Amino acid sequence: MDLIQRFSEWFEENLPQIKESYIQFLKIPSISADPARSLDVLACSDFLVSFLSKGGLKAEAIPTDGFPIVYAEEMQAGPNFPTILIYGHYDVQPVDPLELWISPPFEGTESDDKGQIFYACLSVIAWKAIFGALPVNIKFCIEGEEESSSIGLSRALPSLKQKFAADVVLIVDFDSMPDGALAVTLGARGCMGMEVTLTGSLQDLHSGHLGGIAYNPNRALVEILAKLVDSSGKVTVPGFYEGVQKPTQEEFDLFTFPMTEESVRVDFEIEALGNEKGCSLKEANWFRPTMEINGIFGGYAGPGMKTVIPSKATAKLTCRLVPGQNCETIAEAIEYFIRKNVPQGMKVDFTYQGGLGAYRSSITTPLVRALKQAAQEVTGKPSVYALAGGSIPVGLLFRDVLGVEVIGMGYGLSTDAIHSPNEHFDMQRFKCGFLTVAKMIEAL
Amino acid sequence: MDLIQRFSEWFEENLPQIKESYIQFLKIPSISADPARSLDVLACSDFLVSFLSKGGLKAEAIPTDGFPIVYAEEMQAGPNFPTILIYGHYDVQPVDPLELWISPPFEGTESDDKGQIFYACLSVIAWKAIFGALPVNIKFCIEGEEESSSIGLSRALPSLKQKFAADVVLIVDFDSMPDGALAVTLGARGCMGMEVTLTGSLQDLHSGHLGGIAYNPNRALVEILAKLVDSSGKVTVPGFYEGVQKPTQEEFDLFTFPMTEESVRVDFEIEALGNEKGCSLKEANWFRPTMEINGIFGGYAGPGMKTVIPSKATAKLTCRLVPGQNCETIAEAIEYFIRKNVPQGMKVDFTYQGGLGAYRSSITTPLVRALKQAAQEVTGKPSVYALAGGSIPVGLLFRDVLGVEVIGMGYGLSTDAIHSPNEHFDMQRFKCGFLTVAKMIEAL
Repeated sequence: MDLIQRFSEWFEENLPQIKESYIQFLKIPSISADPARSLDVLACSDFLVSFLSKGGLKAEAIPTDGFPIVYAEEMQAGPNFPTILIYGHYDVQPVDPLELWISPPFEGTESDDKGQIFYACLSVIAWKAIFGALPVNIKFCIEGEEESSSIGLSRALPSLKQKFAADVVLIVDFDSMPDGALAVTLGARGCMGMEVTLTGSLQDLHSGHLGGIAYNPNRALVEILAKLVDSSGKVTVPGFYEGVQKPTQEEFDLFTFPMTEESVRVDFEIEALGNEKGCSLKEANWFRPTMEINGIFGGYAGPGMKTVIPSKATAKLTCRLVPGQNCETIAEAIEYFIRKNVPQGMKVDFTYQGGLGAYRSSITTPLVRALKQAAQEVTGKPSVYALAGGSIPVGLLFRDVLGVEVIGMGYGLSTDAIHSPNEHFDMQRFKCGFLTVAKMIEAL
Repeated sequence: MDLIQRFSEWFEENLPQIKESYIQFLKIPSISADPARSLDVLACSDFLVSFLSKGGLKAEAIPTDGFPIVYAEEMQAGPNFPTILIYGHYDVQPVDPLELWISPPFEGTESDDKGQIFYACLSVIAWKAIFGALPVNIKFCIEGEEESSSIGLSRALPSLKQKFAADVVLIVDFDSMPDGALAVTLGARGCMGMEVTLTGSLQDLHSGHLGGIAYNPNRALVEILAKLVDSSGKVTVPGFYEGVQKPTQEEFDLFTFPMTEESVRVDFEIEALGNEKGCSLKEANWFRPTMEINGIFGGYAGPGMKTVIPSKATAKLTCRLVPGQNCETIAEAIEYFIRKNVPQGMKVDFTYQGGLGAYRSSITTPLVRALKQAAQEVTGKPSVYALAGGSIPVGLLFRDVLGVEVIGMGYGLSTDAIHSPNEHFDMQRFKCGFLTVAKMIEAL
């Protein structure tokens, strides 16, 4: 009986217990961005430590400035065999807007982007259960702040350099191809966040008494935000594109993961495309930075009308960054641009919320070959290479601090509506991920 | 003993009962714009009918398509004497944002812009109590939707033409001079509201997966809103200023109510002024129309960051209008402008929420003389003429349907922070209004 069959049988035999643990894990509303959910995030890290310990790994929660890192290791293979650091996260995005979730979130109905790290843990636990030992060394680094900028892990990583030492990092948090084939992800964009609040008056004003007189902060805010991006979709902030490289033909040829206007329209039911003029969708999503208004709010949002000039207006912005761009430099350039363009007398509060840059890894990393072989056997389909338009905040840090390549895999589907109401990650793909990691461990 | 002294004594003698009724009236949260408060708005109209009936007037609630009109009359003077229709409203603006109210709203701590109509009612009740009869005929028309566009009264007015027939309309809802002298208000700007929602996708999207691809509705919205007004503060919508007249020197000379940059900065603690280039504050506030973003909201508004491209973004807009402008025409021009400027594929929902135009009345109306005389005696100060930057939605309708002049008075102060947290209307000015109306009835 070959390895994949053996692990598949183990999975089916243990399915009730696997499902029970998995649903328990998903049910914890570990929203790292919401201070009200802090205890839930901690409960989720406790759950993982206990789950991994029960599975035979040496597991612990490492405190950080933010939420703890769940660390676990299985090092019986010894120093003559390679060590893989498997990275994932146990936190999720805020579930707001609640009214758009068809079924309540966190009900654990086989859904959530916490699913990917869970199958990777389960593969190692299964190896221990079936064979008692693994042919490679495994370390897990599972953080609680991936969805809110990885501050804790970022700060702690330099002091954990020895503990986390590995030959390669495997990030288990990516999408597969639409047909279920694996996409080996060789890089991701960076991401950094900012919040800007304009204050025109201490209190809301009457739009009749002061209309035509007071500068409405909503007006000032839309004027500034509209200036950030020009009509061709290009960010206008001076210095924003400094260091950004045009993709080479070689890169276009390598990254064959498909991305067409048609597929975007069909998969996401979006009609309005905002890509930079002259950039294909793939170029815009993988090789170009973005400026996104994730939230805007000022004044009255209730029913009917209320004739106020609000005292304040706020926007939450994030930029996706590509190699060559530095978060702090970009944040400073944007802050300078905003302050320069604000009407006289309007108060500006600008907060840089942190972020991390983009990273790229080499196709010649041995893990890439093992992963491709495993995925081909599990899915029956050849894998492709991809980059990620999204971000793995610590991807760049792992490269810099540990000095190793960072390879991404995953069986998410972009149509999972990740980060929006009704996430789902079905048991079919969960098992596929489980088998791929199991086989990869052997193939390496 | 002269009339003012007599009414003053009556007021002081009855102060406990007056205060009790007044506070009871203020405590009802009659927010006409909020469907959840419908029963409170109705309770407030019931309260007024009962209060006026107890005071000896023939009072009733007249049903409309919206909230009822409280109507009351005292017609014993007979057809040989003039009839004044006194207009006011018993509804208030939404109290949102609640967290900014230092003391809870509707606690009835001698505050609220419902106070003005209450003293006018009390003057007539006092006339009945003191003299048993009045030298003029009085009708009250007190509506429940002034703060939400007066739809009910607007639609009902033509059929109430006979019932409401009068020689002049007195609107009791305006500000006094900062020093307490009366401002006789000869006109007000109109006001109309719109809501626009842009939808880019059915669900919120991931700003990594779709960032650079999907057109963010927040971006589309700020681009469109920023286009509505140019950098000189002029509305750019074609046709917006059609029919708008430059004020004459005569008008500038007549309306001496003061309005300076200094007073605006000091009274409202605002630094950023948004008046049209080349317009004084008074011209901008009284003679020019506005385009105001009263509310804007799209995407994530919670703590921390959430990297979404929201599915929708909404803005609530109102325009203050001046004579020569028509609400529907302006709303159509704005809707056309928005639809023309929206990115291809973005869905637009545009709702015109109703509105009414501006009005102007003649300085030669006999009520103006009576009012000025009464106010001079009560306050000891000569009154001035003013226009209102705010709106009395039905001002224009009264002129058109009843064919009479519409004169405004009031003892509000612009520093009452009307329509924003911590409204207040103190008993001092309440009594001043009470005495002015009482004396005006005699002087007429």
